[in-house]
Amino acid sequence: MAQENLSVVLHSKGDLRLENRPVPEPGPNDVLLQMHSVGICGSDVHYWQHGRIGDFVLTKPMVLGHEAAGTVVRIGSQVKHLKVGDRVAIEPGVPREMDEFFKSGRYNLSPTIFFCATPPDDGNLCQYYTHSANFCYKLPDNVTFEEGALIEPLSVGIHACRRAGVTIGSSVLICGADLFPDRLAKAKELGADFQVTVSKSDSPQQLAKKVEDLLGVQPQITIECTGAESCLQTAIYGTRSGGVVVLVGLGAEMATVPLINAAVREVDIRGVFRYCNTWPMAIAMLASGKVNVKPLVTHRFPLEQAVQAFKTTRQGLGIKVMLKCDKNDSNP
Amino acid sequence: MAQENLSVVLHSKGDLRLENRPVPEPGPNDVLLQMHSVGICGSDVHYWQHGRIGDFVLTKPMVLGHEAAGTVVRIGSQVKHLKVGDRVAIEPGVPREMDEFFKSGRYNLSPTIFFCATPPDDGNLCQYYTHSANFCYKLPDNVTFEEGALIEPLSVGIHACRRAGVTIGSSVLICGADLFPDRLAKAKELGADFQVTVSKSDSPQQLAKKVEDLLGVQPQITIECTGAESCLQTAIYGTRSGGVVVLVGLGAEMATVPLINAAVREVDIRGVFRYCNTWPMAIAMLASGKVNVKPLVTHRFPLEQAVQAFKTTRQGLGIKVMLKCDKNDSNP
Amino acid sequence: MAQENLSVVLHSKGDLRLENRPVPEPGPNDVLLQMHSVGICGSDVHYWQHGRIGDFVLTKPMVLGHEAAGTVVRIGSQVKHLKVGDRVAIEPGVPREMDEFFKSGRYNLSPTIFFCATPPDDGNLCQYYTHSANFCYKLPDNVTFEEGALIEPLSVGIHACRRAGVTIGSSVLICGADLFPDRLAKAKELGADFQVTVSKSDSPQQLAKKVEDLLGVQPQITIECTGAESCLQTAIYGTRSGGVVVLVGLGAEMATVPLINAAVREVDIRGVFRYCNTWPMAIAMLASGKVNVKPLVTHRFPLEQAVQAFKTTRQGLGIKVMLKCDKNDSNP
Amino acid sequence: MAQENLSVVLHSKGDLRLENRPVPEPGPNDVLLQMHSVGICGSDVHYWQHGRIGDFVLTKPMVLGHEAAGTVVRIGSQVKHLKVGDRVAIEPGVPREMDEFFKSGRYNLSPTIFFCATPPDDGNLCQYYTHSANFCYKLPDNVTFEEGALIEPLSVGIHACRRAGVTIGSSVLICGADLFPDRLAKAKELGADFQVTVSKSDSPQQLAKKVEDLLGVQPQITIECTGAESCLQTAIYGTRSGGVVVLVGLGAEMATVPLINAAVREVDIRGVFRYCNTWPMAIAMLASGKVNVKPLVTHRFPLEQAVQAFKTTRQGLGIKVMLKCDKNDSNP
Repeated sequence: MAQENLSVVLHSKGDLRLENRPVPEPGPNDVLLQMHSVGICGSDVHYWQHGRIGDFVLTKPMVLGHEAAGTVVRIGSQVKHLKVGDRVAIEPGVPREMDEFFKSGRYNLSPTIFFCATPPDDGNLCQYYTHSANFCYKLPDNVTFEEGALIEPLSVGIHACRRAGVTIGSSVLICGADLFPDRLAKAKELGADFQVTVSKSDSPQQLAKKVEDLLGVQPQITIECTGAESCLQTAIYGTRSGGVVVLVGLGAEMATVPLINAAVREVDIRGVFRYCNTWPMAIAMLASGKVNVKPLVTHRFPLEQAVQAFKTTRQGLGIKVMLKCDKNDSNP
Repeated sequence: MAQENLSVVLHSKGDLRLENRPVPEPGPNDVLLQMHSVGICGSDVHYWQHGRIGDFVLTKPMVLGHEAAGTVVRIGSQVKHLKVGDRVAIEPGVPREMDEFFKSGRYNLSPTIFFCATPPDDGNLCQYYTHSANFCYKLPDNVTFEEGALIEPLSVGIHACRRAGVTIGSSVLICGADLFPDRLAKAKELGADFQVTVSKSDSPQQLAKKVEDLLGVQPQITIECTGAESCLQTAIYGTRSGGVVVLVGLGAEMATVPLINAAVREVDIRGVFRYCNTWPMAIAMLASGKVNVKPLVTHRFPLEQAVQAFKTTRQGLGIKVMLKCDKNDSNP
Repeated sequence: MAQENLSVVLHSKGDLRLENRPVPEPGPNDVLLQMHSVGICGSDVHYWQHGRIGDFVLTKPMVLGHEAAGTVVRIGSQVKHLKVGDRVAIEPGVPREMDEFFKSGRYNLSPTIFFCATPPDDGNLCQYYTHSANFCYKLPDNVTFEEGALIEPLSVGIHACRRAGVTIGSSVLICGADLFPDRLAKAKELGADFQVTVSKSDSPQQLAKKVEDLLGVQPQITIECTGAESCLQTAIYGTRSGGVVVLVGLGAEMATVPLINAAVREVDIRGVFRYCNTWPMAIAMLASGKVNVKPLVTHRFPLEQAVQAFKTTRQGLGIKVMLKCDKNDSNP
Repeated sequence: MAQENLSVVLHSKGDLRLENRPVPEPGPNDVLLQMHSVGICGSDVHYWQHGRIGDFVLTKPMVLGHEAAGTVVRIGSQVKHLKVGDRVAIEPGVPREMDEFFKSGRYNLSPTIFFCATPPDDGNLCQYYTHSANFCYKLPDNVTFEEGALIEPLSVGIHACRRAGVTIGSSVLICGADLFPDRLAKAKELGADFQVTVSKSDSPQQLAKKVEDLLGVQPQITIECTGAESCLQTAIYGTRSGGVVVLVGLGAEMATVPLINAAVREVDIRGVFRYCNTWPMAIAMLASGKVNVKPLVTHRFPLEQAVQAFKTTRQGLGIKVMLKCDKNDSNP
């Protein structure tokens, strides 16, 4: 077993360090993983820049990273469904208690859940990492490590779509914050049928009308990913009666919205908190080739260059920056 | 056939008149009804006092009334499931178009729906009234006309409970605007387990905590019937993660609410617009004796005293004021 | 207006005739359509060969055809959403009564529904045909008439998938009766990942095991399209606990199945009767290019050669035989 | 701590013994319970009489009993939500693995679940018993131990009703095997509106018609509790189009049923395997007084007279026989 375990540790706001940590021992229900590819998420950068997200405050050094895939190098005594050498994707949230949320299949709502790189829980941007074997999912041969790491952000989309009831043939409005031309072009390339660029002078009602004119109908579903108040308003006005607005973006604590408009047209407003039960479906989607996430990886850095990788992400360059944790294998 | 048809007609804001109108002819799919009992709804009083509700503005004289039951006295040529003499409850909303909402079973959302006593559509506070036979439901012998009339407000509750997923064993918070001691006592008598009286000094979070302390758990479902911003906030803070807030009360056009709190705990916010497909269930509930709405009728007036009845309602006396339209039968 | 209306009329078992019928007059809520493309369905051939399907018995001459698209040439006095010149796809089932099924959005279950080419209702394999305007759906410019006609069989698939809850990433077993190598090849080409050819010696349990071995997991959903008892048994044994078997194929009146196996593993068994509310979704699917039905049309005949077209279908040649009803336009 | 632990142990078919077993030690996530009231289930008697139920075969001595309530007398080191002295109801099924069924909220389908008194897992018909604390539910003061024990059979009903979508106002047909006049009288007393006694000469279609005539409509839901083929057939024929048949009773491995009739009327057939997530709801139902199970307990025996209690149950006397495990407290 290797003696070193290079890890990307956030010590405090702005203080990101590469340091060696001991290789952890897997508990009876855990597996020890040699990490291969870990994506950098906006939340990793946010913790680095601000030391907190909402009520989650960094109070002691924490390993970052939660979009990850690696290889099983040791298994705990009780683990049966995985073996050494298995390539796996990691679901970062592991419920700690069998509470009502876990028992009813919504473990993402369990208030005591362990979650990688949410204070105080360590993430997996390192070389060796232990995780509950039940939340590691074997990758088929035709799914790469990087695709495995991308299952985490893909899961946010799957969960939002499930909450919204998106199905083939649904007309969907996605409110995205992103105004970078490169990203808009990528969204178009990956499937958006139409794009509307918002100008400050548009009222929410006018925007809603623009969307309807483009689609020919009002969308049945709006996936709101900005958290901006004007977008929340647009989402409500713009969604067809009987439809659904899903809240993915997080903005200010209080929002002023036309709740009556939603109420009398029975437009449901549904929140999304992370995800649950998405990895098996995501693996099926990737393995079948029906969904292609590979074009999203635009930058790669070896683990040793993690700080540079974080800077690249902070600058909004490209789409997804991937850190490569295995010195002997820098393949996707 | 009778020659007179005494009707309660609102001519303009504040101008409520009793006048004779012609007895209408039923179309091929209609029935002509001799009205028996019609309840006065808050919306009837609101039209009387303000001449409008939101975007619905009275622009010509309109018969009031939409909580109604009567007897079939003539049937249209195409009507098969009803016959003269049948006692029926009237569903006041009748879709005019087979649009996507009607086809998918949510005809209450159809924008062109006919609705009794919503301008410009006449209601049924009169002696003789025609209605689509498909939206008249035969009452069993053990269900009275007044119970039949009360199916309309009961339907609001049924639809809200369906939208919320209320079932036996659900813990439910109902935010009601009503501070009259008589009404609170009636609510207690009819099934409320606990009551919390709100004081101005309570913050929404504090109120949410009070409710949780009383119930021992956070309610899974909150039915918000006030439309008041502070109650909307209480509803969101107070509902269990993964639960549902149903919006029944209508307040200001824009509301400031903790949408993020709802989003990250996946508390759904669902509107309620009237109802659909509730009459058969309501009749089953009443016929079985499992639901008793009779104690809600606290005042009765003959149709001739309609103005006095409206004044009684406006003063907030009692619970439900019932108008008796049949001179020969003033039974419930 | 044209004076002739060549129609494909089944007079009795085996007696299929081409004859001229009067051009019908549209009622106030109808449109008169000039038919363009009409597909031949197995049920059309079955009526021709046997004069009946189950309890539906031909007792008088009936026009065949229910997979159809055409152009609006006249509109009824009440029709607003269509105009002369609109290209439309026809939903063949039109509910006649606002019964509980229609009101609750499942009008396909309405026992008195009109349905093209189900005795005694005439179909649309002719040149001119009137239909309820509410059940004609305007085709976008990028959707052809033949695609419009194919919405009918596509709707069977959509409805089955909805009943089953199929979504992206679902693992699905489709039991199809079809053993023609050409058709199996087409299924493979259009998306099947694996195919299992059944041999008489395989028991249902063995077949279920074969499927599991191929997929790596048991399918969550089985869509049973054969009606054969051994396939029904395979469907139950082979579906994952908590999953769904959808019954599309119709076999003998009574079937012997391992109901306990389904019960104790909570495998739901759900029937499919035609479809409802599928045309708008189907049009969205076709217009977006996400679903391609064009390769399914393998044969085309002018309406005048309808008998030959029926013979071709009866022989099981190709996949879909399309009749072209407009002499001036034989495009897809 | 007591030194003796009198237990009801089935050694082999027909060989039921009362014997002392060691008082078990609770693991870190367990609680040790002093048992108070344990109901005898038909399955306990069936194991005693036959040594097996289906594929579950007794191969070594097993403690019987799984309808149980008791008092916490020790807690494991990790247990936080319970304390010594808490009165609890026991959910007998405890999933052993975090498999896909558990993660998605349907842990009853987990193939490796622990289940009291299903071979080889010991039940709780004894004086001291350890159980996963997460599957012990604290009883409110106004719910008795016996009510707590009855939550187990009540849960079968709750789960069946959930699977069926039963709600207030639903019309439901329950096919029950029970022909004992006493039991039929009790069913009537506890809520059945009508009863039909089946005679051998009635065909399933005739029975279905009888039910419709009694109810005035076809039931939307049929809960089939017999497993008898003729009742399965009646259930399908008798359920309204678009409705649900729930399979609670278990009969022969293969059943011959009119599957096409169910399919073309979209009558869903759904199985029920035990239950999941029912205890909190059951406790709420009992605590509120809305459901009264007390009249179901017709016989009580001290634990020492367990064999006599089993004989009473086998004879079909009364409804529920309760064993009292605490010498110092024989209250309900």
